[in-house]
Amino acid sequence: MIMNKKNINIGIVGLGQIGSRLYKEILSKKNDIKIKTGTNVTITGISAKNINKKRSFKFNKKIFFKNALEISKKKNIDIVFELIGHSDGISKKVIEHALKNKKHVITANKAIIAKHGDYLSLLAEKNKVNLEFEASVGGGIPILRTIKNGLSTNKINKVVGILNGTCNYIISEMESSQDSFSNVLKRAQLLGYAEPRNPKFDLNGQDSLSKVRILSALAFNKKISKNNCLMDGIEGIEIEDIRIANKLNYKIKLLGITEIINNKLFERVHPTLIKKSNYIANINGVMNAIIIDGKPVGQTILQGEGAGPGPTSSALMSDLLSVLRGNIKYPFGSPYNKRKKISFFDINQYLNSFYLRLEVKDKRGVLSSISKIFAKNKISIKNLIQNPDKKNKKSSVTIITHENSEKNYRNLIKNLSSNKFIIKKTNFYKNREE
Amino acid sequence: MIMNKKNINIGIVGLGQIGSRLYKEILSKKNDIKIKTGTNVTITGISAKNINKKRSFKFNKKIFFKNALEISKKKNIDIVFELIGHSDGISKKVIEHALKNKKHVITANKAIIAKHGDYLSLLAEKNKVNLEFEASVGGGIPILRTIKNGLSTNKINKVVGILNGTCNYIISEMESSQDSFSNVLKRAQLLGYAEPRNPKFDLNGQDSLSKVRILSALAFNKKISKNNCLMDGIEGIEIEDIRIANKLNYKIKLLGITEIINNKLFERVHPTLIKKSNYIANINGVMNAIIIDGKPVGQTILQGEGAGPGPTSSALMSDLLSVLRGNIKYPFGSPYNKRKKISFFDINQYLNSFYLRLEVKDKRGVLSSISKIFAKNKISIKNLIQNPDKKNKKSSVTIITHENSEKNYRNLIKNLSSNKFIIKKTNFYKNREE
Repeated sequence: MIMNKKNINIGIVGLGQIGSRLYKEILSKKNDIKIKTGTNVTITGISAKNINKKRSFKFNKKIFFKNALEISKKKNIDIVFELIGHSDGISKKVIEHALKNKKHVITANKAIIAKHGDYLSLLAEKNKVNLEFEASVGGGIPILRTIKNGLSTNKINKVVGILNGTCNYIISEMESSQDSFSNVLKRAQLLGYAEPRNPKFDLNGQDSLSKVRILSALAFNKKISKNNCLMDGIEGIEIEDIRIANKLNYKIKLLGITEIINNKLFERVHPTLIKKSNYIANINGVMNAIIIDGKPVGQTILQGEGAGPGPTSSALMSDLLSVLRGNIKYPFGSPYNKRKKISFFDINQYLNSFYLRLEVKDKRGVLSSISKIFAKNKISIKNLIQNPDKKNKKSSVTIITHENSEKNYRNLIKNLSSNKFIIKKTNFYKNREE
Repeated sequence: MIMNKKNINIGIVGLGQIGSRLYKEILSKKNDIKIKTGTNVTITGISAKNINKKRSFKFNKKIFFKNALEISKKKNIDIVFELIGHSDGISKKVIEHALKNKKHVITANKAIIAKHGDYLSLLAEKNKVNLEFEASVGGGIPILRTIKNGLSTNKINKVVGILNGTCNYIISEMESSQDSFSNVLKRAQLLGYAEPRNPKFDLNGQDSLSKVRILSALAFNKKISKNNCLMDGIEGIEIEDIRIANKLNYKIKLLGITEIINNKLFERVHPTLIKKSNYIANINGVMNAIIIDGKPVGQTILQGEGAGPGPTSSALMSDLLSVLRGNIKYPFGSPYNKRKKISFFDINQYLNSFYLRLEVKDKRGVLSSISKIFAKNKISIKNLIQNPDKKNKKSSVTIITHENSEKNYRNLIKNLSSNKFIIKKTNFYKNREE
């Protein structure tokens, strides 16, 4: 009763952890798919770098294509999964060609959607096919579908989330094991929670920012923003910061936030001090959590596993069934030409209270010298905790400030960096009081 | 690009708080609906008991029908909202006639879906129209859509939730104000959180059980169960229970639970002691929260406002857009004839640890007499706290047991009720250790 076509052929490009799991998932759920959508699905094309790599499943070598683009061109393929994950290059070519050849595309690739999502959605709309990317944000949490369908006509004004499981694992694990960033990162790499070669894009906030940009476009019905964002990662967090935050009744979390302030878009990713009593302070390990403020629905929270083959293949399968249920949907919920550009909030105007930890020489006049810099920048101090380390003739000074503008903070940091008493770069986090 | 029909007419049956809010919501979101679905929607029929009742909006009296059934018969109506809320009678007739006349139906009515959902879904499938009921469970939380679409091919084995905002408000408020059940109920009624005339179905667990039955059918792809369930409400909870639980590091929550144990369905609703560190113990006020365990996705949590015109109209609008996006969906995700009956878990075999509070005479031999009853039923005691009330010559005895079967507990309660030392009926809750 639902489908147009009774037999649908699938191509999978990329057979890493995710692609392999998806391959097995589709085969094992063939009957369930048939019941729910009336469609027989068959995998008729797969592509990966190396046909001979040892894999956990067997496949007919006739359906293997060394050149990924062949999958996008093959006549007997209706749906293409792009699971390579680059923001350009072969990933972009595979998706472009598939859409132009009127094949539906499903991808887990946040980098390409954050960068080329508008262009690709227009291409999908023009060719009357679906472009689905539920797995690109929040792993197994059906967050994009929730915004597009579950909360479809709500006026959303803010989305806040822990969007990167790697970072959340590292911060939680630093706290529970009282171990250093670099040791915990090594463990995360061994456990498969962090990229073994180049974990940079997880750790520096780029991965979260891509997700924030996709969320903004959906939540606010706008084009994907290209502006410079406030982006800060977790590489600078030291165990000492976590300890002090803990004493002050805070947790440190890497948050991705997008909101509308005076009709302007403000997207940001940064480590944030959050009161322990706050829901999101208690999300630990590789979990993701996302809070949506909308009208008339109020606050909706979604929580679940943010990464890994299981959750990701769950999201990919939900996209597959969405395509199989038959109609063509706008990839971002609204047509391309109705999604306007939105002007960007001036980061300098952003008001927040801040946490700073300075390592200073243990000398007379230090506190007075530092206080002067704060006063000069019109920033007033709410809490100051000094921890002397007599043996090494130094002292750690933790300061929580009253609310002030980002502009003043940047000047403050600049001024502090040239102060003769300060031994090393200042650790510096936003302090979200909510 | 999406719709078959460019102009869609809507009828609304029931103009209480929910219906009125929906009426205004549809009018104010006409343009948004047009953008997202390409459809012009017009409300061409409304029905309520009294045309002259004072309302917060004006309407053309020509579209008012005193007889609700006229809406289901009218030619120029494509979609009918049923918002009366009875489990039978006029609600059933309105939905039946609308489906038979090939109109899509959207309802917020959990009672009718829990009772007649299978029959009505078959009727919808036969007539190739949609029957949507997102608002029937979890208020504004898009929980049904999440199970049907977001987690579509996951193997779900358990769903646990706080499903009734009225009960959760009352329990939370008893704790924070240290006030009695009856006083807090009165306040809840004044605030509109509890039915002013007959709050019974919220308080006795029936409302939560209806929601549990809908969740089971969707989560496990089964027919709606008709079996007797373990159902207990919050009417018996005393402030003393909340205080003692608090001292023991527990919160009391009314949970709705459905799970598969050895291929059998076990549905239940009961007040439950939950460790304070547990996520769901910290859901307060009118909030709802639902935890889904699925494979391969892992654990997914959804939280949001569970009732009220805002959240409910959000869910109704998501149903409307789902219908307008065009294709016909199975109301329960799978076709009627593929949803099998499932055999029911024997409640007597259910193992749990229990909390009991007895009020006993302050006499010699009491504890020994009570202990004997526990021993006779093979139930061993984990914690016993005695609180003497010398002035009134009585004593409160709180007992937490080791795990045992429901059958043994029922016998225990029966035996305790005939004990000469016990002054009043025993308060008795499940103790979920997770």
